[in-house]
Amino acid sequence: PEAVIDAGVGAGGGRMREFVESEILARFGDGSARVGLGALEDGSVHSVEGDIVLTTDTHVVDPPVFPGGDIGELAISGTVNDLAMMGATDPIALTCGLIVEAGTPESLVTDVLDSMAAAADRVGVEISTGDTKVMGAGEIDRIAINTTGIGRVTGEPLQAARLEAGDRIVVSGPIGEHGLAVLSAREGFDFGGDLASDVAPVNDLVRAAMAAGTVRTATDPTRGGLAMALNEFASSADAGIAVEERAIPISEAASAAGEVLGIEPLDVANEGVAVFGVAPDDADAVVDALREAGAPDATIVGEVLTDHPGRVVLDTGIGRRYLAEPTGEQLPRIC
Amino acid sequence: PEAVIDAGVGAGGGRMREFVESEILARFGDGSARVGLGALEDGSVHSVEGDIVLTTDTHVVDPPVFPGGDIGELAISGTVNDLAMMGATDPIALTCGLIVEAGTPESLVTDVLDSMAAAADRVGVEISTGDTKVMGAGEIDRIAINTTGIGRVTGEPLQAARLEAGDRIVVSGPIGEHGLAVLSAREGFDFGGDLASDVAPVNDLVRAAMAAGTVRTATDPTRGGLAMALNEFASSADAGIAVEERAIPISEAASAAGEVLGIEPLDVANEGVAVFGVAPDDADAVVDALREAGAPDATIVGEVLTDHPGRVVLDTGIGRRYLAEPTGEQLPRIC
Ligand SMILES: Nc1ncnc2c1ncn2[C@@H]1O[C@H](COP(=O)(O)OP(=O)(O)OP(=O)(O)O)[C@@H](O)[C@H]1O
Ligand SMILES: Nc1ncnc2c1ncn2[C@@H]1O[C@H](COP(=O)(O)OP(=O)(O)OP(=O)(O)O)[C@@H](O)[C@H]1O
Ligand SMILES: [Mg+2]
Ligand SMILES: [Mg+2]
Ligand SMILES: [Mg+2]
Ligand SMILES: [Mg+2]
Ligand SMILES: [Mg+2]
Ligand SMILES: [Mg+2]
Repeated sequence: PEAVIDAGVGAGGGRMREFVESEILARFGDGSARVGLGALEDGSVHSVEGDIVLTTDTHVVDPPVFPGGDIGELAISGTVNDLAMMGATDPIALTCGLIVEAGTPESLVTDVLDSMAAAADRVGVEISTGDTKVMGAGEIDRIAINTTGIGRVTGEPLQAARLEAGDRIVVSGPIGEHGLAVLSAREGFDFGGDLASDVAPVNDLVRAAMAAGTVRTATDPTRGGLAMALNEFASSADAGIAVEERAIPISEAASAAGEVLGIEPLDVANEGVAVFGVAPDDADAVVDALREAGAPDATIVGEVLTDHPGRVVLDTGIGRRYLAEPTGEQLPRIC
Repeated sequence: PEAVIDAGVGAGGGRMREFVESEILARFGDGSARVGLGALEDGSVHSVEGDIVLTTDTHVVDPPVFPGGDIGELAISGTVNDLAMMGATDPIALTCGLIVEAGTPESLVTDVLDSMAAAADRVGVEISTGDTKVMGAGEIDRIAINTTGIGRVTGEPLQAARLEAGDRIVVSGPIGEHGLAVLSAREGFDFGGDLASDVAPVNDLVRAAMAAGTVRTATDPTRGGLAMALNEFASSADAGIAVEERAIPISEAASAAGEVLGIEPLDVANEGVAVFGVAPDDADAVVDALREAGAPDATIVGEVLTDHPGRVVLDTGIGRRYLAEPTGEQLPRIC
């Protein structure tokens, strides 16, 4: 019979200690913390100096394994990316807060932990502390993971409020892939293997962009998609943002899936894309640097305006319209 | 009809922005962060220097409102306490990672957010960043909250590995109240209002103890209770721990509830107790300081031995036996 997680693993006694020793310590905790995971203390301790970014996300994606990735890779990438979007491209440490449903196959949990460890290793960040809770059968759907991260930012933190008129808007890659791939998988559609999540840490891209020019802000267009991210830029900067629709990279598979599902690629989550606001004179250099750093589709899609404060103006090629933030009536559990 | 949380609140669009603006920003975020919650950025930024403690806990307590507190007060206290147990008694910032079941009454969520804000205010810590996910009806039981915290520790971090033979074991207050109160509420037992959770931030107690003498380690005996905490001390220190059973403060209500429920008070979670390992000559001063700081039942319960490495030796008054770690077969969703 398949081994499953039972309630005892979350009860804080010997059963949990065994789980932590055999499944967690075997995978996580290599690092340079002053007090690391191996001490099994109340927390980890890190010697730092300067400006520290703190960010958190809980991941509840359904299904937990999807074309192109799984909830473990997503949980690490998501938090690494949020740190990077503030300018902290070399994260110090991440936490792992697990909630597991009693009865979940142990193999799902260990596969997800493997993915977390692999993604953290790739980035070179340690998972230094965590928590494991088990809820009853039917009280949570399989697995949810919170990851919280800390990282150091040198210089001015990246912030949308720093955007200035004339700054160029740069996207690092094709838009809409993650959300459309997850929704397709959930609905049972198959786009011939062409559509997969873009989930990936993009801290390297942000580092490359910052080295190539003056990056004023960056964000990962996750829930709400590029449309939400651009509206947030406009709102935080109290400026207009002009975007050229035909410049936005969208794959054929994503376009096709969007039409079948009745969903706008601009409105759905990306998990391996960065959107930048860059000083005008540096925009070409930043695009070149991104392309060299592994983002061949990086491109300028728009710029910051002096008028239309708080609004995104989309040039469709045949005219202009405001690009609204998605309302959020649909699309639960995308990440 | 009662207002409820629906899936749109978790979808990352306008509905989520409205929730964050009206329910989150109204309660959280007052603080001294360099980039705070109000910026609604990808994370918050904090200027720090030195050794930073990082700790995380997800809270899934059932029921979410229980005698003596609720999941919101628990989520703040739990993470403030884990920071304090490493020596970081003045936390810098906390995160708020919400998962809400679609259909949950909005009033439950806002009550819980009120409790979080009140507890954070009491401690003087800001909630500087967060995340909100909504799962479908039946996919999560009402509400779960992850809180992750950072705090600065000056001097040597508190660690069980620092315990030395002869060190005294001090507990700050009565044992078993939280776990027994929650279990009683869940089972529908009523102990005449005498039994309530002890949930509270105890960072003030840790600060007072550290000021009064050499504190080598501290822990909050949450899941697994005092029995687990003492076994962890013994294991991390690779030393024996002798404990006098009659010295352990346990209320009459907790004893009675433990008998009715068939549960050992030493095995269940406390959420407002600290257990310390203190240099022998300073133990009386630490106890006095704790009593003055608002813990009238603080007392010495044992000491670190040279023999019985890794074991807890309980003196029952009529003899001695090893106090085992609870296995964790029972007691899900206590915190
Ligand atoms: N999923 C996990 N990933 C990484 N580390 C974990 C995980 N679960 C537990 N740990 C580690 O195991 C140790 C024990 O965790 P535990 O949650 O019992 O500590 P605690 O927070 O002090 O107790 P409680 O959760 O009952 O308040 C800690 O050092 C913690 O960092
Ligand atoms: N429950 C909450 N408590 C405190 N702040 C919150 C909460 N939910 C959201 N926020 C804040 O609202 C803003 C938007 O949150 P959001 O989760 O959309 O950002 P994100 O993590 O960049 O996106 P995603 O979660 O889709 O990856 C952030 O600044 C976040 O800190
Ligand atoms: Mg603890
Ligand atoms: Mg995020
Ligand atoms: Mg924990
Ligand atoms: Mg983000
Ligand atoms: Mg804890
Ligand atoms: Mg988020």
